[in-house]
Amino acid sequence: MPKKVVLSLSGGMDSTTLLAYLLEKGYEVHPFLFNYGSKHNPFELQSVILIGQHYKLNIRTIDISGAFWYIRSNLMASGGEIPEGHYNDSNMSKTVVPGRNSIFITILAGIAESIGAEAVALAVHGGDHHIYPDCRPLFFTAMNQAIRLSSEDRVHLLAPFMYDDKTKIIATGLPLGVPYHLTRTCYKDQPVACGRCGACQERLSAFADNGIPDPVEYESRSLIGEDE
Amino acid sequence: MPKKVVLSLSGGMDSTTLLAYLLEKGYEVHPFLFNYGSKHNPFELQSVILIGQHYKLNIRTIDISGAFWYIRSNLMASGGEIPEGHYNDSNMSKTVVPGRNSIFITILAGIAESIGAEAVALAVHGGDHHIYPDCRPLFFTAMNQAIRLSSEDRVHLLAPFMYDDKTKIIATGLPLGVPYHLTRTCYKDQPVACGRCGACQERLSAFADNGIPDPVEYESRSLIGEDE
Repeated sequence: MPKKVVLSLSGGMDSTTLLAYLLEKGYEVHPFLFNYGSKHNPFELQSVILIGQHYKLNIRTIDISGAFWYIRSNLMASGGEIPEGHYNDSNMSKTVVPGRNSIFITILAGIAESIGAEAVALAVHGGDHHIYPDCRPLFFTAMNQAIRLSSEDRVHLLAPFMYDDKTKIIATGLPLGVPYHLTRTCYKDQPVACGRCGACQERLSAFADNGIPDPVEYESRSLIGEDE
Repeated sequence: MPKKVVLSLSGGMDSTTLLAYLLEKGYEVHPFLFNYGSKHNPFELQSVILIGQHYKLNIRTIDISGAFWYIRSNLMASGGEIPEGHYNDSNMSKTVVPGRNSIFITILAGIAESIGAEAVALAVHGGDHHIYPDCRPLFFTAMNQAIRLSSEDRVHLLAPFMYDDKTKIIATGLPLGVPYHLTRTCYKDQPVACGRCGACQERLSAFADNGIPDPVEYESRSLIGEDE
């Protein structure tokens, strides 16, 4: 019997690569998308539906926006402007959503325990560590311990890309045939990726590093700092 | 300036005592009730509204039932019968809601960080340890560590009743004038407390230990095992 795993699937390139990676390893994957009220949530949903069709997988969405009405971030529809520039710039910290990963993890752990899945898989990666405290290895160690204790060791966390960057993730995904043309990374509330926010810039760099063009449409593909 | 704290207020006797305890200590308390789809949620809501009126506090409710559609427990409106008998009986484990406390904690920690509160207060107590893995001290230590890391030490957990039982909690609450007549403890989906589920039995015992009658109406006040 294949091992069951619950996956937080955002429709971005990292979690879509993780989906392909887990399927290739023979896991029975149960993907969930959170609608939490971010500016790019509607476009993530669109991507996730197309990715579900591609892999012939049932995608479940969880509306948790009621909990996020009280949570402040520029990433949210209720927040200020999305900053442009490098992913590691200090102004990118405006896109931190307090507690977001913790909340996603604990909900998925409760679901995993309920459906008999052994793990919650997340596509956090090395590029997130600088900005997002709830993507760092020490946080994951503590949260994994909490989840193991809470579930009496029935559920644990799985984050195989923890020490990879986006360049490495694409290198992992290309031989797996990940449908990157269906994925959505941009943080802005517009259908076509802006190319200028930190998330777009990091993604464009990672495709360039792999020597292939990003198959997604962009308003601008210039790498900031390289053409100045 | 008073210290701000976010409180998970269920309308039960433990969290209502904790509210009184924190107010007496001078905290600015922000109470939240979760609607997560349990059988007794509607009656908890009624209690919490009355408790808010009593203390002249704004009570916010968070509908998180969408996340709990996938979570299984007899405590839920979607689940089987609520077991009757002692709180420590093995059949009470049917009332465990996988991940419930973890989910509540992470959401409240995200809110705390957003509104500048320094702590998330929870009324978990010694009587919960046997049945509920996510109420045990080791779990709390790990989760507190995860929350501190996720918030870069801006938020921590507060559980002053961790090693008390319900008898001690009532002894704490009585001199504080806690309006126990407004609280709701019964797990069943009926307006009047049954008196026979584990939660009712534990509460009735605790009032008896303090030598005063529980001011709440019950269908039955017999302590199971004592009148057989």
